[in-house]
Amino acid sequence: MATQRAQVAIIGAGPSGLLLGQLLHKAGIEAIILERQTGDYVLGRIRAGILEQVTIDLVDEAGVGARMHREGLVHDGFDMLFDGQRHRVDLAGLTGGQHVMVYGQTELTRDLMEARAAAGLTTVYEARDVAVHDFDTAHPRVTYTKDGVAHEIHCDFIAGCDGFHGVCRASVPRSAITEYEKVYPFGWLGLLSDTPPVHHELIYIATPRGFSLCSQRSTTRSRYYLQVPLTDKIEEWTDEAFWQELRLRLDEEGRDKLVTGPSIEKSIAPLRSFVTEPLRFGRLFLAGDAGHIVPPTGAKGLNLAATDVKYLSSALIEHYAERSDAGIDHYSQRCLRRIWRAERFSWWFTQLMHRFPDEGPIEAKLKSAELDYLMHSANGLKTIAENYVGLPLDFGG
Amino acid sequence: MATQRAQVAIIGAGPSGLLLGQLLHKAGIEAIILERQTGDYVLGRIRAGILEQVTIDLVDEAGVGARMHREGLVHDGFDMLFDGQRHRVDLAGLTGGQHVMVYGQTELTRDLMEARAAAGLTTVYEARDVAVHDFDTAHPRVTYTKDGVAHEIHCDFIAGCDGFHGVCRASVPRSAITEYEKVYPFGWLGLLSDTPPVHHELIYIATPRGFSLCSQRSTTRSRYYLQVPLTDKIEEWTDEAFWQELRLRLDEEGRDKLVTGPSIEKSIAPLRSFVTEPLRFGRLFLAGDAGHIVPPTGAKGLNLAATDVKYLSSALIEHYAERSDAGIDHYSQRCLRRIWRAERFSWWFTQLMHRFPDEGPIEAKLKSAELDYLMHSANGLKTIAENYVGLPLDFGG
Repeated sequence: MATQRAQVAIIGAGPSGLLLGQLLHKAGIEAIILERQTGDYVLGRIRAGILEQVTIDLVDEAGVGARMHREGLVHDGFDMLFDGQRHRVDLAGLTGGQHVMVYGQTELTRDLMEARAAAGLTTVYEARDVAVHDFDTAHPRVTYTKDGVAHEIHCDFIAGCDGFHGVCRASVPRSAITEYEKVYPFGWLGLLSDTPPVHHELIYIATPRGFSLCSQRSTTRSRYYLQVPLTDKIEEWTDEAFWQELRLRLDEEGRDKLVTGPSIEKSIAPLRSFVTEPLRFGRLFLAGDAGHIVPPTGAKGLNLAATDVKYLSSALIEHYAERSDAGIDHYSQRCLRRIWRAERFSWWFTQLMHRFPDEGPIEAKLKSAELDYLMHSANGLKTIAENYVGLPLDFGG
Repeated sequence: MATQRAQVAIIGAGPSGLLLGQLLHKAGIEAIILERQTGDYVLGRIRAGILEQVTIDLVDEAGVGARMHREGLVHDGFDMLFDGQRHRVDLAGLTGGQHVMVYGQTELTRDLMEARAAAGLTTVYEARDVAVHDFDTAHPRVTYTKDGVAHEIHCDFIAGCDGFHGVCRASVPRSAITEYEKVYPFGWLGLLSDTPPVHHELIYIATPRGFSLCSQRSTTRSRYYLQVPLTDKIEEWTDEAFWQELRLRLDEEGRDKLVTGPSIEKSIAPLRSFVTEPLRFGRLFLAGDAGHIVPPTGAKGLNLAATDVKYLSSALIEHYAERSDAGIDHYSQRCLRRIWRAERFSWWFTQLMHRFPDEGPIEAKLKSAELDYLMHSANGLKTIAENYVGLPLDFGG
């Protein structure tokens, strides 16, 4: 068995793992990243693309923000469309100048991979049979096989950035963990196409036919979503059927401006709210989707993962540089406070905008009344805006 | 058959009917009020006691506000208690000086009854077999029997202020009406006692045991509520059991200060959201509970009824004084806009504060997170406060 040594073993080379690796590297902490898939596979996963300021700042701190600032699109607001009317949520005006940035997770992952390669840092792709051991002791280990050869990493800490289905959370004894979960009775059918977006900002749409979202990755690449029943099969949704249904959920302006084209990706994703408590087990930390999932309404997933990584990198840097474990001890609590706030917003926004199978006529009217109230109340609009751009890190003291 | 003539026949001598009668009288419009019950029975119905400024103004306009201003308690805020912590919602500070007034519906009804008697106006109590006729023509009629004698009123308009179970809404053809309804899977067990309130303001309490509300009618009369299953029977709830359960939902400060005593009223009420559309059918108008019900969380019921009465009295005065039917034609629309906003708030506040039978652990955590967010966000607090004191009449343009 080949034996390696690292201060930190990071499981998962998605944006969380890569961003953590970069931040640790800048602080002089050596980390090995293990990834079950190939690099191309990771880049092929289509995910969200709305970055909060906290995330933008962290990407800059990691030194990989150059292309993001060049190519990312600053959005000062978005549209809400319901009962046939559009209303703009003026994020900048409502939050004193804050905004979000459209920059695909795929692009961010690519920037992080390139920075890691340029620095000559180790990412082991196609690492099989990854297992985490002894994280409740001072000497954790990670084992895996690569090209048929068994490997072992001796490390100080393990960072579980391996997503909802990853091995890290699954390795924690059931008695040490509480999981909160809610699965929504519908999915998002997403379509990516190299067509100009129907609008220069996002449009969140609530209709009797269900929710829809007009999003984008760039000025030439659109991302559209339709709420669909979980029983729908992706092979039954032709591109033409998708565009037809999207037209039915848009307003006249949207129908006029919509440019359609062949899909370059199309898939159905379930919606889930999920939180693990705690997020630290001795010397094992969970970050990002390994510890929590939000439904995609409001685009909090990647941004929450970034905050975990921020708190985790600070904690590890504190440990090595200042010989203080305060950050490690408070990791769970600091993350969870922010996580529950984002879970709350994502749940609320999802409930408000989607049609539920068990929803009666009065629920539809009450939701319309809620949207109508919010769009006409400066205070209501501000609650949406402050959550959408991301609550301050010190929110609530 | 004894025949009478009135410009307006008002069905129901609760606060809506009496307030309407008073406003019409001041404008020189003659109205007869019919009430199925005795006056004592009407006064014995224990209802809410939180008046918004709009309601206070209307009571003043009706000329019956003297005792209300003398004995009513101005409340500048209320407490929210959840996860063992109290938070004050500073209504005055959050709304630029607005407040609510604690003055029991029973007291207001008594003031209105006395003013009506003093003016020598007709209220027919114990009117049996009330029926409304021909309200889709220019010559509506109301028939009833009193002490075995059949009566008929010829009138220009009929005001249905006869509550949820009243005859007016039931007399409208089913095809002309849309009803939206939601019944909640729990009730409010209320107890009235001549004991000093546990706190000088109201306390809204969310606990794992269910919702509770510490309310009051005066500095010497308390009104407490407990969320209970709909299957509970009132005769199974002794006073002692009530106080014991209330203590379990209070915090330490509350338990210390709670003064208990014998109940002078105790009952279980169901919670319902209900809206009828439209509220006008030719020359028949529905006002108050006849047209809509809110769950009591947030105390919107009486205040919404008052707004209906305001719009209805204005419409009728416009008709007689200015020979314009604009107010009559817009009655439904003006009322319903405000009604749906209050229905929205009452539904939202009810959902947030109560435990639902089908609620899992994550829903409880999400609700805690929502409360925690709201109490720490100036914008969130303002949304609660502006709804609690009552949105402006011209809200949303």
